[in-house]
Parts: sequence; C-alpha cells; structure tokens
Amino acid sequence: MIKRIDGGITAPKGFLASGVTAHIKKDKKDLAVIYSETPASAAGVFTTNRVKAAPLLVSMQNIADGRAQAVVVNSGNANACTGEQGLQNAQQMVKTAAECLKLQPEDVIVTSTGVIGVQLPMDKITAGIEKAVAELSRDGGYKAAKAIMTTDTVEKEIAVSFKLGEAEVVIGAMAKGSGMIHPNMATMLGFITSDAQICPAMLDKALRQVVNQTFNMITVDGDTSTNDMVVALANGMAGNKLIDTENEDYAVFKQALYYVCEHLAKSIARDGEGATKLIEIQVVNAYTEEDAKKAAKAVANSNLVKTAIYGEDANWGRIICAVGYSGANFEPDKIDIYIGDVKTAEQGCALGFSEEKAKEVLMQEEVLIKVDMHVGTASAKAWTCDFSYDYVKINASYRT
Amino acid sequence: MIKRIDGGITAPKGFLASGVTAHIKKDKKDLAVIYSETPASAAGVFTTNRVKAAPLLVSMQNIADGRAQAVVVNSGNANACTGEQGLQNAQQMVKTAAECLKLQPEDVIVTSTGVIGVQLPMDKITAGIEKAVAELSRDGGYKAAKAIMTTDTVEKEIAVSFKLGEAEVVIGAMAKGSGMIHPNMATMLGFITSDAQICPAMLDKALRQVVNQTFNMITVDGDTSTNDMVVALANGMAGNKLIDTENEDYAVFKQALYYVCEHLAKSIARDGEGATKLIEIQVVNAYTEEDAKKAAKAVANSNLVKTAIYGEDANWGRIICAVGYSGANFEPDKIDIYIGDVKTAEQGCALGFSEEKAKEVLMQEEVLIKVDMHVGTASAKAWTCDFSYDYVKINASYRT
Repeated sequence: MIKRIDGGITAPKGFLASGVTAHIKKDKKDLAVIYSETPASAAGVFTTNRVKAAPLLVSMQNIADGRAQAVVVNSGNANACTGEQGLQNAQQMVKTAAECLKLQPEDVIVTSTGVIGVQLPMDKITAGIEKAVAELSRDGGYKAAKAIMTTDTVEKEIAVSFKLGEAEVVIGAMAKGSGMIHPNMATMLGFITSDAQICPAMLDKALRQVVNQTFNMITVDGDTSTNDMVVALANGMAGNKLIDTENEDYAVFKQALYYVCEHLAKSIARDGEGATKLIEIQVVNAYTEEDAKKAAKAVANSNLVKTAIYGEDANWGRIICAVGYSGANFEPDKIDIYIGDVKTAEQGCALGFSEEKAKEVLMQEEVLIKVDMHVGTASAKAWTCDFSYDYVKINASYRT
Repeated sequence: MIKRIDGGITAPKGFLASGVTAHIKKDKKDLAVIYSETPASAAGVFTTNRVKAAPLLVSMQNIADGRAQAVVVNSGNANACTGEQGLQNAQQMVKTAAECLKLQPEDVIVTSTGVIGVQLPMDKITAGIEKAVAELSRDGGYKAAKAIMTTDTVEKEIAVSFKLGEAEVVIGAMAKGSGMIHPNMATMLGFITSDAQICPAMLDKALRQVVNQTFNMITVDGDTSTNDMVVALANGMAGNKLIDTENEDYAVFKQALYYVCEHLAKSIARDGEGATKLIEIQVVNAYTEEDAKKAAKAVANSNLVKTAIYGEDANWGRIICAVGYSGANFEPDKIDIYIGDVKTAEQGCALGFSEEKAKEVLMQEEVLIKVDMHVGTASAKAWTCDFSYDYVKINASYRT
C-alpha cells in the first residue's frame, strides 16, 4: 500500500535540505543543497544530448561508484557550453560544498539549470553554497523545490510511504521543468530521496526503468536540454532488509518510485510553458510497447494537436496523422480514437460525434486522448500540455 | 545557364491549366486541373505517413507506369481517413476528369488537401471538374496556383528556361503548403511541369534526389501530412534529345529542377503559418551529408529556436542544444555558430559578441544560421520560419 504523505525530499529519514537566494537570478531563491546524514546509494540518469553541460560531466563521474551524500543545484545559469572554465567552475562548486559539509568531493553531485553559454558568477555561487549549508534543515525540502525553478510557475514535490517487511519506508522527490522538455531521456531535473536500504545496482535499475516510463514520456516543446538529469539517493535509514535482488521488496519499491515519478512527470507537463491544460495520451492494444510509446510520443509532440486542444477543437484528424508519422507499426483501418469518453473515429474513419460533448471534454483542465490500435496487447502513456500564445511569449525573449 | 522566366506550370510548351471555385470552400478557388496536350513522362514522391489519404493511394497506382497526362487537385478537403467511400470518391474524381479530357483514367493523377476525416461533396467536385476542364488555358497556371491554397497567404509558382543542345527547355512549377509541414518526405503539394524530353526513370531519379534536398529539408511545425505529394510531368515538346541516361543534359535538367524546387521549398517555409521571417540553416564541414542534414533539420524544427528568432533574440544556446540532440555525429568543442555574419560561439563556447549587431541581423526578413562543425567537408541546408503568436491563433480553431 503506497500512501501519499506531506512533504518532499526531506520526508525520508536522515535527509536535510535548504534553498537560498544567491543572487544568480535577481531576488529569487536560486541555490539548493540536499544532504543525507549518512552515505547513500546513488543512481543517476543524464541527458542523451551530445552537448552535455559541465556539471553533468562532473556528476556522471562522481556518481559512478554508486554512492553520494549531497547534491548542490543552482538555477538561473546552466553552466552549459562554457568550456574548460565551466568544467573548473562545476568542480569548484563540488569542492566548496564538500568542504562545508566535511565530505569527499566524490560524494557530491552538482547540477545547474538556466541560460546556456554564460560563465557562472562564482563569488555568488560560493557564498550561496556556504549559506545553503548553514541553513540545512529537516523541513528545508520546500525551499529547495522553490530554488530549482526557472520558468516553472509552481514548485513540484511529492512524498509517499510504504511498508517493506516491518519497516516504514519513505520516498520523497522534487523536480523542475517547464520548457526545453522532450521525451527520449531524463528531460528535466529530478531529485529523489529515500530512506530505503537498497544497493546501488538495484537503485540504478529501478530508476532507469521508471524514468523511461515517466519522465521520458513527457514533452513540452520537443527540445532536449543539455542539462537534464534525475538523481536518486537512498540512505538506508528506514532499516528495511537490504534490497539487493529483484525480489518482492524491489517490486514494491519500484512501484512507489513509479508513483512518485509519474506524479512529477505530470506536474512538469501540466506546468509546461504557457500551458492551460494537461493532456494524457494513452495508446492501447498495440503490437509492442515500443509501437505504443512511439505513437503516444508523436501525438504528445504534435504542435497541431496541442494548438487544437488549446482551441478546444476536437480535431482528431491531427491525432491520427501524428500516429501515422510516428514510425509505429499499426493498421490505419483498425484504429479508434477517443477524446475523453467521446469516440471520434472508428476503424480509421470519421465517426459522427457530438461536437458539443467533445467541447465539454476539451474545456476540462485534464484531457485524455485514447488511441486503440486493436492489433495487440501492449500499451503506453505520454503526457504533454496544450500550446498557447503564452508559450511563444515566454520564449521569444527568454534571455533578455 | 538557368534563366528565371515569368509564369508557372503553364510556362512549358503544351501545358494548360485552370483554377475554379467549386464551393468546397466558401467562395474561393478550390479546384485546379493541369493538362498536357501530349502524354508525358511522370514521376511522383508521396508522403511517408503510414496513414495515406485516398487520392494518394489512387495516384500512386496511376503513376506506376511512368506516364500521365492530367492532374486534378482540390483544396478545402483532404479526403483522408475517409475509408472505402473516400477511395471510391478519389476514383470518381479521376473518372470524371478522364471523361471530360478524353483520357484513360490511368493517365490522371488526383490529390486533395484540407480538413481530414470528412467525405468530399461529390456533386460540387464533379461540377467543379467539368468547369475547370472547360476553362483550361495556356495562361491558367496562376489561377491553378490560387486554387490549391489552404492557409497559404500567397500563391507559389516559378518557371525557368535553359538550353539542352539546341533546344530551349522550360520547367514550371507550383506548390502549396503552410502548416503540417515537416521534413522527411515530400511535405506539401508540388506540381512540376516541363517540356523536356526525358524518360520516366530519369525523371523519377532526378525528382527523388532533388526533393530530398529541398522539400524534405523544410519544416513549419514538425507535423507530416497524410496528403503530401510532389508530381512532375515532362511532355517532351521542347524537342531536346531524349534524356535516358545520367549524361550532361541530365545534370543540367536536374540543376534546373533543383532551382525550381529550392525556390518553392523556401516559399513554403517563408509562408509558414504565422511566419514573419524565413530562416535558412546551413551546416558546413560535417563528417557526412547525413550528419549535416540531421543537425540542420533539428535546428529548423526547434520551437525554442523559432520563438527566439521571432523575438529577435540571439539565443545561440538553443541552436547548439538542438544540434546536440539531433543525432548527428560531431565534436561539441569544435563547433562555431553564426547568426547572419555575427559569430556567436566558437569551439562550442560562448563568445563575446555585439547584441546590437545580432539584433540588426535578426530584424531582417531572412535570417541565416550557420553551424560550422570543423570536422569534415559535408554540408546541408534546411529552411523554416519563425514561430509567432499567429501560428497558435491559426491552429487553435482550424476546423471551426
């Protein structure tokens, strides 16, 4: 039984966090630290973009041994396309945090999000890290979730608890992401903490599988960032029996992890730049999961579908068109399409349907699109948001 | 020497055309016929979308023998996702045109563009075809170019002449396309006529190669239509020596065909829904042409790049980011990026550049983005438009 509880990354035992104003951005919180009282199993998933930001290069190295104890994050500047200087700055962030926390640098994960191609203001960053470490607390999760936001309009956090044997285990998490969001990799920043006792290999395996079905199935604008990453830390303080194989406890842990990640993935899609609606695309009865995923992602990524839903127009032709170019294997004359509970197409053809009823469905804040392929048993879900004037407004002058 | 001349599809010898109001749309021209006085070599490229509209299925069959003599096109209704009835309607269009023109149905190509999932109003279509055939004329090319428009704001036509031996040869063409435009196939409707004498196999070869470098390198919104096709007819009336191998004449013909197709491809990108600017992306010194194409297309297709250029913001970070996720092979620390003649990044890193000068470049109606990979000798071009509020406006309520 997975139970939703209050809080975010500091909900599990032994995790502290903070979020401070380092003045990288004007007067908003822009630097966060997460700290585990004991060394934790650690796993990470990083952007597939060939251009990887400096902090990701450093973090990929530091997480390679499957252990970490702290994470430092800044918003307002991505430290991407910053060359050798950028790499030194990312290493300096790790070093400063390690010194303040009395850790080895290899146990610190670092990441950055914001504008590309500008060097970090290291004075402000260093002062910010010192301040953030000084303010670490057991209820600092919310402040940390605030500090990692860029164009996000709401902070995104969640926590759940569940039993493993006699032990009460907690997973907490936070994420940011609103633009430059596209499937096919970890498409944003996500931070997951847990007091579960789980070995690095199993944590890594669970994280990869779950990220593929959640964060990698959302899109806002089809652009894959240079800075995407999701990191999970599990410090074992819940005292459950160590998970070191794919046993029943692993299954429960993974289920809870999925719950947390799906929640955050949907929060990101819902908070997409300029979004007014969350759109969930379900593809069912496909030949393979890969086919279902391709089709769901293509619909989620179609500007034409997204603008039609913004305009509350039941233009299902654009949905079948996107499925058609998705690369998925299917039979065009077997496909049914639903918008909410309104069946708009049957066996690939137009169906007389009530435009009024469809309009009612489309006026809701959550819109479900269901594509039934009628050829197999595999399925997948993807999430996106509608596409409004405000997306253009936000992105026409992001830097200036 | 390829010389630009006046006119469009009726510029070559022996071609007649017309464009009439059949009332499929309200009161605009919406039905066109192209007719060659003699049987012509014919070649076609069709959408790669798995969902193919009924008229494409019919046309693919009729063009298979490499010969055709007429084309009938309607706008306002795509005859896509219309099942068995739609197929019968497309065949009926061919039959009606063939009867009026005293041709075999196999020599008539048919296509449709407009709303998906609605049956054609066959009474109007039939009357329209009869009217259009009656109005065929040697200067009907412009009216035909008008009749195939949907959300296009300008008609798109071009003609060129060139010498093959002693013979003066002409290629004329028209196209439509403004939304649902995405590389990876012929992404719109294009009609090319010529009085060149060329065998079907050589015409087909030239058309495929040129379409891959022109129409397949434009994008407006990343959506691949169910109805895309480009058709070329060459009736031989110029009296040049028959082109039946890849000789020098073939090379000249192909060069002229490229000129025509690049012109139309750019016209489509420039007239993209809501566009205020044409953007050309040049990728140079790539390992392979495939790498250059992938990178150019990814930049062309990035909503974030397109909104930045709409906002006249020299946000080159989004350009390198798109190159990074394009799947192209390259070295991030070797790449230079230019916006117009302003170098904004060198060896993958930020470069101090004059924002004012960049702004000046971005205020123009044509913006050149150049990505120099510095690893090889291959290159490619792609075209797109900027992304404005009006794209959203046009597409939020297309059907209603």
